[in-house]
Amino acid sequence: MTNPMDLCKNLTVNKEGHLCFGGQDTAALASEYGTPLYLMDEDRVRENMRVYTHAMQNYFPAGSKALYASKANSFKQMYRIAAEEGMGVDVVSCGEMYTAMQAGFDLSQAYFHSNNKTDSDIAYGIEHGIGFFVADGTDEVDAIERIAAQHGIRQKILLRITPGIDCHTYEAVNTGLVDSKFGTAIETGQAMELVRQTLLQPHVELMGFHCHVGSMVFGEDVFLRTADVMLHFVADVNQNCGYMAQILDLGGGYGVRYVESDPKADISASLKELAETITSICRQLNIAQPAIRMEPGRSIVADAGLTLYTVGSVKQIPGYRNYVSIDGGMGDNPRYALYGSKYTVYAAQRMNEECTFTCSLVGRCCESGDVIQPNIQLPEGIHRGDSIAVCTTGAYNYSMASNYNRIPRPAIVMLRGGSSYVAVRRETIADVAALDE
Amino acid sequence: MTNPMDLCKNLTVNKEGHLCFGGQDTAALASEYGTPLYLMDEDRVRENMRVYTHAMQNYFPAGSKALYASKANSFKQMYRIAAEEGMGVDVVSCGEMYTAMQAGFDLSQAYFHSNNKTDSDIAYGIEHGIGFFVADGTDEVDAIERIAAQHGIRQKILLRITPGIDCHTYEAVNTGLVDSKFGTAIETGQAMELVRQTLLQPHVELMGFHCHVGSMVFGEDVFLRTADVMLHFVADVNQNCGYMAQILDLGGGYGVRYVESDPKADISASLKELAETITSICRQLNIAQPAIRMEPGRSIVADAGLTLYTVGSVKQIPGYRNYVSIDGGMGDNPRYALYGSKYTVYAAQRMNEECTFTCSLVGRCCESGDVIQPNIQLPEGIHRGDSIAVCTTGAYNYSMASNYNRIPRPAIVMLRGGSSYVAVRRETIADVAALDE
Repeated sequence: MTNPMDLCKNLTVNKEGHLCFGGQDTAALASEYGTPLYLMDEDRVRENMRVYTHAMQNYFPAGSKALYASKANSFKQMYRIAAEEGMGVDVVSCGEMYTAMQAGFDLSQAYFHSNNKTDSDIAYGIEHGIGFFVADGTDEVDAIERIAAQHGIRQKILLRITPGIDCHTYEAVNTGLVDSKFGTAIETGQAMELVRQTLLQPHVELMGFHCHVGSMVFGEDVFLRTADVMLHFVADVNQNCGYMAQILDLGGGYGVRYVESDPKADISASLKELAETITSICRQLNIAQPAIRMEPGRSIVADAGLTLYTVGSVKQIPGYRNYVSIDGGMGDNPRYALYGSKYTVYAAQRMNEECTFTCSLVGRCCESGDVIQPNIQLPEGIHRGDSIAVCTTGAYNYSMASNYNRIPRPAIVMLRGGSSYVAVRRETIADVAALDE
Repeated sequence: MTNPMDLCKNLTVNKEGHLCFGGQDTAALASEYGTPLYLMDEDRVRENMRVYTHAMQNYFPAGSKALYASKANSFKQMYRIAAEEGMGVDVVSCGEMYTAMQAGFDLSQAYFHSNNKTDSDIAYGIEHGIGFFVADGTDEVDAIERIAAQHGIRQKILLRITPGIDCHTYEAVNTGLVDSKFGTAIETGQAMELVRQTLLQPHVELMGFHCHVGSMVFGEDVFLRTADVMLHFVADVNQNCGYMAQILDLGGGYGVRYVESDPKADISASLKELAETITSICRQLNIAQPAIRMEPGRSIVADAGLTLYTVGSVKQIPGYRNYVSIDGGMGDNPRYALYGSKYTVYAAQRMNEECTFTCSLVGRCCESGDVIQPNIQLPEGIHRGDSIAVCTTGAYNYSMASNYNRIPRPAIVMLRGGSSYVAVRRETIADVAALDE
């Protein structure tokens, strides 16, 4: 038996042999709220946020700030928690802006990303007082200039720059390379040209630069190399255009542990080293240190999430494979189907039993690709009605969830100091068909 | 310039050089309903359905029936059309059953599939008069027996059998192999044992067998081989258990053309050959011909669908690649992200221009993997505001759509005899956040 605390300290086992999450018995939670169920450990969310807010306050230049990359898991309560913890947010759509506003989040502390903002997105942001647009390229700077002029304002923006860093993660999350749908490349000279053009726009106020090199970054020097490239760009811009960036946004991307074999990142130590490196590079380049932004998403919410399911059938095919089917699947967690992502899976009420039954954990969707995790080990005799916990599901599960097979999306229940509450209600079948004429 | 009619005859070009779908100008539709927009050609849906209903009536034994596999695209209007065309439906969840019922569909003509039906799914089906459960294995037969007994009824079922056919399509849709989360295998002897057990259940009425060998099947003999295996099983069951199946459900899976290089399937001819083969095999085996069910989904709706988008930015990275970003993406069409699926893409209002600009068509989600189609050709000078049509999106686009990045799902507009109407309303940002507390 492995000790689930080795994966994340908010996973424990009680004397009944039940998995506890955030100190609460998952059996009781499954029974109270039903399955499938997303659990979010609010205490862990806050703890993860404080790693960043502490570093921003103590290691980085004055005015530095951490932004929660809300696309990782966006619902009203997350914006309330971010505000309480002194974080800004990054939003990528009107839907995320709307959710933040409904939660009372001060939009002046929000940064609007994405590689394609429509005119109506830009107008919506301006009309609701968005703090910053992170403009992806020429098309967007032009559109923001035009719409800001129509509204008679000067809009603060950052420019998204592609530093050309290979962060050695897999293709789908490797965004800092020059060949990317995001940003404008330094290497090709296009970034410098974009800065020149932007500085000529009367209704756009350039506040600095943004970059994002990818997700699930564990390589210790990735952020250091990124900072180096970006600060050299800041210095070059200063020299060539006489413009000194006030803000440098280094994006997000710290990796989290989905399985015990994933590396442990010491984010606090890494941020301290990054801050020292930035100070040192700025000194070498003889430039003032810009205020830093970082945009953690996955490292805030991933290990604060866990999904509970109930087993529906166990199928043993002699000579082939065993299948354990659960009452959720790729509709609530498409990450194995999309990326072959790894997850740690437990039989949540049989934590003290030996796990010698090799099987694939599959979803209930009518699709062979609906797999949560192949080749896992569960206790022998696992059967219909047993509870299954899939760990580290707080990021890119609910946010990517679909109604495939017209299956309603699970509720999100938050755990806080020993109590629990519903943050997102369980969808109903009537909700799913509500837009049908 | 290619002729879009070569892909599907409902694609034409008008004298303004605009792509027309179902005879209607996509420019006018984009302007009236906004983008992104799912279009569904109702006339084409009905035409595709009639290929099957005609074959069932004319080639197959009395009592044979085609069922629309509604998971391909499930919304109320689809069930109304299926009913009008004399098709049954296959449903895979309470959500699909609910939608069918809301549309006035007679549930006695519905077949409830999936590899994992919960107790509450089974109770819901029984309480609402579902015609048939397609039971996946022992766990489900036991559950249906128990719940039917509680309701004091005898419930009709089919058993899902795994024939062990390799349909030579790719892994995610290859479901007829013995190593599958679906069904119970003939090869291992488990299917015969399941039949024996099922026949002992007092509250379950076994009506026959179901199988499904996979999706995107073009190989001409796949259904013939499947029928052969299944009819031999029917005969073996008859001999061993004294039970003669009344219904044989051969599933769905005919391939459709996403790009011009995909083969053209003559489904009508293929069904005729299949019917003749069934007659011949039954004669050899000296068994009565069971009534046939087939379950087309993709071949009913795929080429009846087209998605319209608007270009947001065009990014040329010299020496690397060009990117065209649109106002939708993996949220409304995750199939390239999931399967690397091919699609045909047109600049919908510039159909008479040469396409020499090589680019990747990417979505607006904050994710590098948000690609609709890489390495396509569009006209030079394509720019923000241009219309893009992605063809053959009627299956597994809306049904798999998510709110990733909190982006609302597009409307579905149906085209019928030169007019258009909204079948599924456009989701709003308020809808997306409606379940948040």
